[in-house]
Amino acid sequence: MKIVLAQQNYHIGNFEANLARILDGIARAKQAGADLVVFSELCICGYPPRDFLEFEDFIAQCYAGVDRVRQEADTIGVIIGSPQRNPAPEGKALFNAAWLLYEKEIKGIAHKTCLPTYDVFDEYRYFEPGDSWKAIPFKGARIALTICEDIWNLGDNPLYRVCPMDQLITQAPDLMINISASPFDYDHDEDRKEVVRRNVLKYRLPMIYCNAIGSQTEIVFDGGSLVYNAQGELVRELNYFEEDFALVEIDEHATARNRPGVRAGVSAGIGLEISGPVPPLYEEILPGLSVVTQDTPPASAQAPGQAPAPELDKEMRVSRVRDPGKAMEYLVAENNIRQIHDALVLGVRDYFYKMGFVKAILGSSGGIDSAVTLALACEALGKEHVRAILLPSPYSSAHSVADAEELSRRLGNPHDIVPIGEVYESLLNTLKPIFADSPFGLAEENLQSRARGNLLMGIANKFGYILLNTSNKSELATGYGTLYGDMAGGLSVLGDVYKLQVYALARHINRDKEIIPASILSKAPSAELRPNQKDTDSLPEYDILDKVLYQYIEKRKGPKEIIAMGIDEALVRRVLKMVNTNEYKRNQFCPIIRVSGKAFGVGRRMPIVGKYLS
Amino acid sequence: MKIVLAQQNYHIGNFEANLARILDGIARAKQAGADLVVFSELCICGYPPRDFLEFEDFIAQCYAGVDRVRQEADTIGVIIGSPQRNPAPEGKALFNAAWLLYEKEIKGIAHKTCLPTYDVFDEYRYFEPGDSWKAIPFKGARIALTICEDIWNLGDNPLYRVCPMDQLITQAPDLMINISASPFDYDHDEDRKEVVRRNVLKYRLPMIYCNAIGSQTEIVFDGGSLVYNAQGELVRELNYFEEDFALVEIDEHATARNRPGVRAGVSAGIGLEISGPVPPLYEEILPGLSVVTQDTPPASAQAPGQAPAPELDKEMRVSRVRDPGKAMEYLVAENNIRQIHDALVLGVRDYFYKMGFVKAILGSSGGIDSAVTLALACEALGKEHVRAILLPSPYSSAHSVADAEELSRRLGNPHDIVPIGEVYESLLNTLKPIFADSPFGLAEENLQSRARGNLLMGIANKFGYILLNTSNKSELATGYGTLYGDMAGGLSVLGDVYKLQVYALARHINRDKEIIPASILSKAPSAELRPNQKDTDSLPEYDILDKVLYQYIEKRKGPKEIIAMGIDEALVRRVLKMVNTNEYKRNQFCPIIRVSGKAFGVGRRMPIVGKYLS
Repeated sequence: MKIVLAQQNYHIGNFEANLARILDGIARAKQAGADLVVFSELCICGYPPRDFLEFEDFIAQCYAGVDRVRQEADTIGVIIGSPQRNPAPEGKALFNAAWLLYEKEIKGIAHKTCLPTYDVFDEYRYFEPGDSWKAIPFKGARIALTICEDIWNLGDNPLYRVCPMDQLITQAPDLMINISASPFDYDHDEDRKEVVRRNVLKYRLPMIYCNAIGSQTEIVFDGGSLVYNAQGELVRELNYFEEDFALVEIDEHATARNRPGVRAGVSAGIGLEISGPVPPLYEEILPGLSVVTQDTPPASAQAPGQAPAPELDKEMRVSRVRDPGKAMEYLVAENNIRQIHDALVLGVRDYFYKMGFVKAILGSSGGIDSAVTLALACEALGKEHVRAILLPSPYSSAHSVADAEELSRRLGNPHDIVPIGEVYESLLNTLKPIFADSPFGLAEENLQSRARGNLLMGIANKFGYILLNTSNKSELATGYGTLYGDMAGGLSVLGDVYKLQVYALARHINRDKEIIPASILSKAPSAELRPNQKDTDSLPEYDILDKVLYQYIEKRKGPKEIIAMGIDEALVRRVLKMVNTNEYKRNQFCPIIRVSGKAFGVGRRMPIVGKYLS
Repeated sequence: MKIVLAQQNYHIGNFEANLARILDGIARAKQAGADLVVFSELCICGYPPRDFLEFEDFIAQCYAGVDRVRQEADTIGVIIGSPQRNPAPEGKALFNAAWLLYEKEIKGIAHKTCLPTYDVFDEYRYFEPGDSWKAIPFKGARIALTICEDIWNLGDNPLYRVCPMDQLITQAPDLMINISASPFDYDHDEDRKEVVRRNVLKYRLPMIYCNAIGSQTEIVFDGGSLVYNAQGELVRELNYFEEDFALVEIDEHATARNRPGVRAGVSAGIGLEISGPVPPLYEEILPGLSVVTQDTPPASAQAPGQAPAPELDKEMRVSRVRDPGKAMEYLVAENNIRQIHDALVLGVRDYFYKMGFVKAILGSSGGIDSAVTLALACEALGKEHVRAILLPSPYSSAHSVADAEELSRRLGNPHDIVPIGEVYESLLNTLKPIFADSPFGLAEENLQSRARGNLLMGIANKFGYILLNTSNKSELATGYGTLYGDMAGGLSVLGDVYKLQVYALARHINRDKEIIPASILSKAPSAELRPNQKDTDSLPEYDILDKVLYQYIEKRKGPKEIIAMGIDEALVRRVLKMVNTNEYKRNQFCPIIRVSGKAFGVGRRMPIVGKYLS
């Protein structure tokens, strides 16, 4: 049986665009002589559709989409994802469903059983878990069809009481197919292959695993669809961070012949060499922009059969957090930084593309955060579409302006200098009757930062730019930033990247030639809102700060556990208090492109009036 | 059996404060000679604790709290709510549990079975549903103990497959006790009594229903704890929007004597007349402030036995949305407006109290929104703690300043005039090289709004005020506001109140004497950012706009359904598009005190890059 994996980039609620992509995939699969083409989870409406699912009108459009696909599923089988109404009176109104369409009929439907409801996932908000499981006959084979999380319920400590494959295996299927919308994060990327492999070894069946790619506001789906044979060998790995399309040939009788012994499953590899990105997404709005490509899949740290088991930690199983032993070296490991780079570029590009925006603006301070943001934005959107504004104040050092100018010269993007002195003076003058003789302090620092925010937003509003935010995760965590000032912006590029990782990203960007001037990497971080200010006036050194933050945010370690790692108690308590008392600031922050296992934003929900550790 | 209902105001994560309240409640219940004292859901840690629950350290503190309470539960039974670890390897790590403590022992634990995961609720994110049910023996009676949503699974179209009371009733209990953290909204307030009454009639048992009160960031818990006898008669209704404490006497043998006939349940009423607020919450930080009191419980529209059934709509059962027939009259009905008023006052007061803030600031424009916000803030915090800043521009009308001044004179709160002209001119002048000769437009309007935001935040930062936001729900829905300008602030008072409801609130505030000048109510709404600007230049008239918004936001009606109500198609499509294209703005907005069945914020989760109806 010839099966195509169509790894595509969908847009939430954009039924027309999603359907066009899917129909294109079906046409190409037919051309390639495929028996079956597999798309990803909820591809009809895009994932995650969130509360759009509460609109009957939205569900009706999903059904119309399925119906349209069914018309094309004549001589070829098509597996798509789309919500299905729950006919039972009890329970949630919908199922998260995978549909097998063939001969213009619905041949089978699988309901997602394990509904992720943690971190960025809210599936139990909308869906009833599946409670019956049936292998679907197709062209003489029996397909065990599951959806994303359904195959993740492994180990001694599973998150769900029911494991769908344990049910399906009793029906002697020949093949597992899983359709996914599994997001990228560098803390998690190795788990996916391991989970697929473990399923293959446990059930002794080949698996087709088709993932989505593309960024949806803050969540980056990275593709990397997989085909394993029944021996647990990786037969095919699709590209990461871009659309891809691959045909594989399965010996669908192998499992039946070998039953109950070892099953052969997937044949040696690819029948027809049609592969690679489908027609470019972005050219229509960003002409001349080359799509990010990765010639070889990233070198995986794990060879089949040798990987350490990704255990689900009992206390922490609300998200899949591994052993916290790996620490700071891990955060800046070259493999992680390269993936973060690719995820951020895709995240910026897709945000603009899907929102219908073309041009970005940002404040370029001569510091490392704005430098890295600017370089990433130029890569994502094209240098001519990214305008850097230098906003020096009386407290800016001369080298800051020079460094920012040099950076834009090297990148070749437009830049302007807009000094904030006059605006700042007018603010101080206007407030003089109120401020009276109070000494210079935080209020005056914030006035400068907000003057910059106002000027940047003014230019953005005038000419239709979107303001990119340049804050990093260490700043956001500690509240070291000004609301409506440097915290302004429509999209945060580095908000899930710790300061030490920002440096590593800069070195990665400079790996072939020095794009970001060395002086930007070497200077001490400063907000430059008063004379000789340094970040370390208010914050611990970043190497210790980031360590504490990572243990607290990503690993959910409490103060006692972090102190037990040998970090000064007063420092730990001070840092955790900074994090918890600044929820109110982050609550007003823009979407952050998520690259870690625990990003600020939709996946981390903390009470604002909470009094814990604060 | 004498039972005390302790209706208290908890603070999320503030174990010390919560424990102090609970121990005080136990001491008072002992004094009153009670056999049993009942507190509300998750009272040990406060509700909703959100992702604090992912911290083992937090759970350990919950256990320590339960243990402390157990020491006091010697001669009196105590029912409290606190998370319990799930000992099973499968499933989520925690249960949402109710604990019956007595004779310094844990006598029984009930696990919440129906876990609300819709709107503002995320319980399945943290908790495993209960899967065994046991009536708990206590002093010769058998208590069917449930938690909040557990008793809501009624009707022909239930949201959950399992109904815990259907299990418990088989064990012949004598009494139902439900501990809740059930928030207020005006779309939902009548449901609660009806649900309790229906349970009583269905199971023919008396019910003690103990709710929390107090606001947690955006969610207002309104109290109104209930006691019904087994005939479905309301025996006791505790106060709304304030702490309360009541002792009732139950004839615990009545049900057994009468089994299987009609059960008598609760005796005529209250044994001892100890009732009323526990020691005032706020006096320590807001001396002299009188706590809001409501002498009589609100007149319920429904007498027992006559109420219309609150049906769970099949399509919309992800939240409890009733028939959309009631429309605009309902939104401004006096009973709703009075409750909204009380909820907003409590919401403001608790936000400040729990965050440790005392003083508020706001921009007072002479318009209706800032006038109502100011009046509510003065009531919540005391007039001397609310500073109004008038920020006239060259486009402000003379009467705007005069009206705003008159309002503050009547309220007696401090106010200042800070003209924005100089700041605005400096912004224009600084941007002149960039803006060149482009005509005056939205960018210039936004500069003014953000100049105000910057000046207000400057004063707030200098003197420790919290900026109250004055945007209403109609503006937020349509994106008729400036990010970092009039959308700035730490807390939104009116963000869940449609414009027509703001007028109704103003009339309610003026019900005894004219506090808000009549001229503020009568003038046409305007942002005053260009000459002779009116809201209706950009928006439909509010009476039609609010109608469309209510159907779309609260009732989740699609365009076709709203058009079918007789509203112009182009207008409907334009309004829905405005709502959906402005998710990005609302995403950066501050917490909104929630009073409706569907508020913007944590309970409404829409994709930002979505392309639906936009």
